[in-house]
Amino acid sequence: MDNRWMRISVYLCQVMAKFQVSILGCGSATPTARHQPSCQVVDFRDKLFMVDCGEGAQLQFRRLGLKFSRLNHIFISHLHGDHLFGLPGLLSTMALHEVSGSVTIHVFRDGARLLKEWMDYFNRNSPFEIIYDVIEEGERRIVYEDSGLTVETFPLYHRTPCTGYIFREKPKLRHLKGDMIKFYSVPVAQLQAIKEGADFVTSDGRVVPNAHLTSPADPSVSYAYCSDTLFDKRVAEAVHGVDTIYHEATYDDSLADKARERGHSTSRQAAQIAEMAGAKRLIIGHFSKRYNSEEILLEQAKEVFPEVILANEGLRVDLI
Amino acid sequence: MDNRWMRISVYLCQVMAKFQVSILGCGSATPTARHQPSCQVVDFRDKLFMVDCGEGAQLQFRRLGLKFSRLNHIFISHLHGDHLFGLPGLLSTMALHEVSGSVTIHVFRDGARLLKEWMDYFNRNSPFEIIYDVIEEGERRIVYEDSGLTVETFPLYHRTPCTGYIFREKPKLRHLKGDMIKFYSVPVAQLQAIKEGADFVTSDGRVVPNAHLTSPADPSVSYAYCSDTLFDKRVAEAVHGVDTIYHEATYDDSLADKARERGHSTSRQAAQIAEMAGAKRLIIGHFSKRYNSEEILLEQAKEVFPEVILANEGLRVDLI
Repeated sequence: MDNRWMRISVYLCQVMAKFQVSILGCGSATPTARHQPSCQVVDFRDKLFMVDCGEGAQLQFRRLGLKFSRLNHIFISHLHGDHLFGLPGLLSTMALHEVSGSVTIHVFRDGARLLKEWMDYFNRNSPFEIIYDVIEEGERRIVYEDSGLTVETFPLYHRTPCTGYIFREKPKLRHLKGDMIKFYSVPVAQLQAIKEGADFVTSDGRVVPNAHLTSPADPSVSYAYCSDTLFDKRVAEAVHGVDTIYHEATYDDSLADKARERGHSTSRQAAQIAEMAGAKRLIIGHFSKRYNSEEILLEQAKEVFPEVILANEGLRVDLI
Repeated sequence: MDNRWMRISVYLCQVMAKFQVSILGCGSATPTARHQPSCQVVDFRDKLFMVDCGEGAQLQFRRLGLKFSRLNHIFISHLHGDHLFGLPGLLSTMALHEVSGSVTIHVFRDGARLLKEWMDYFNRNSPFEIIYDVIEEGERRIVYEDSGLTVETFPLYHRTPCTGYIFREKPKLRHLKGDMIKFYSVPVAQLQAIKEGADFVTSDGRVVPNAHLTSPADPSVSYAYCSDTLFDKRVAEAVHGVDTIYHEATYDDSLADKARERGHSTSRQAAQIAEMAGAKRLIIGHFSKRYNSEEILLEQAKEVFPEVILANEGLRVDLI
């Protein structure tokens, strides 16, 4: 391979392996000098998926060097302003950047109605179509699917209807064993089927089991977004088996009553959900503005579940 | 006077003399790392008046240490997102800060309608009332008045209906001549009338002309906000005699055609307006995102009108 093809191959491998979340905002209701309101972007093989879109999201998006042209789906968890007031500005700026095609916004019915009213007025010359995918309260549904990924909803328990999202890689292809493929002279045309698990039949009718020709696929990984929500075991059940969980952790232990009253969780409760769900890793965010440092939230979570990461604006976590 | 009274007196004098504008955002349509979208706050004797409210205004407002409880009027120039997408977040945060009373938003009819739809939903538990003062296209009207200030609209010439705002201090009181007041034994009860220009009639019926008892009042000053607009002489006529003008200066000379086409001005044109209006000072802003430095805009403006200030986030200009 010459250098050009080598570079292209390396790039394609990187893209095909990419499954990353970037935190654009991990504060709660009031933006502060330390934290922006809720927003994050999942990058799956260079397609971008935004989850929640608090005020200022468009600027954070550009600060992180993300590309508007790769953003076609935005998932809104619930209809509190700190989770969606960035949408009008983001969509208007995307229109100015001449993004084409469509952007689908997954959102509860009232949000779709209110957003449409504004966008029909303020974004009426948009070069892209805005599609509203209405989510119903309590719904579990695959709201996005492509060849490599699904995104599904599940209920959260807040003061208003609220949905979480699970991003799941689809099962990956098995790895070909080069020497065996060569040994059996498998035609190129059959390689895809074999990577998908098919056996091979030789020209003299002998069946070569797939396991002789391939080694197991890499495991598929998954990511769940849980904000905003009370501590509720049903959340752990819904995200059971998910590898990485983002869970809100608005308060520390001393404010557990306030958390319950306001439909939020403490960081310890977030860790309990991760523990119950059998997760590998927990990212906590949606921090109350009262904290000048979230170390106490991290400490209390780690007492329950060791693999905790504090969200922060600009943080990128590889999910693979 | 003891120290406490001295401090209170000094504070009152400072407050009574305060007429200041703070720039919260002076970029154009797309926010960048350098500039926020349009927003500024006029502080008149500790009452705050916001003019335009681009996305991120609430955060800038708090960064400058301004107090939500002193903000009761917001003036929107026109219905492009970069001049008002900060309103939902600002009003929601004000509600969380338990601002009471009312906030009046001066805005074109469609803006009032669309904003009301969102606020009735997202801010339905607001502790303050939102009053919508509908501005008609082309209207010249005093939209705010108190004992010391008026705010009036005048038309700007953009791609959509657009209004400027002039803040005018009302005529101030004349200064009493202490020795003459004592000489004529003017009763305290009559001092206010004399400061307002009344003559004094002595107990034996002699008329003492006001000019014997007072020296002239300090001049009243004024400030005009002109963004967004084409270069148009009618703007200079509308703001004639205003002391300080904020005028948009989106482009440099080389983009004069683009400015006309997009309903904007060059910095030279902004300076021409200031020159024609007989202003004392010009602040330019609403900079296109193409500039990494606005020095060229400043230079070209100064060729026409010397007293030019480049707006910048956090800039405060004393208008007195």
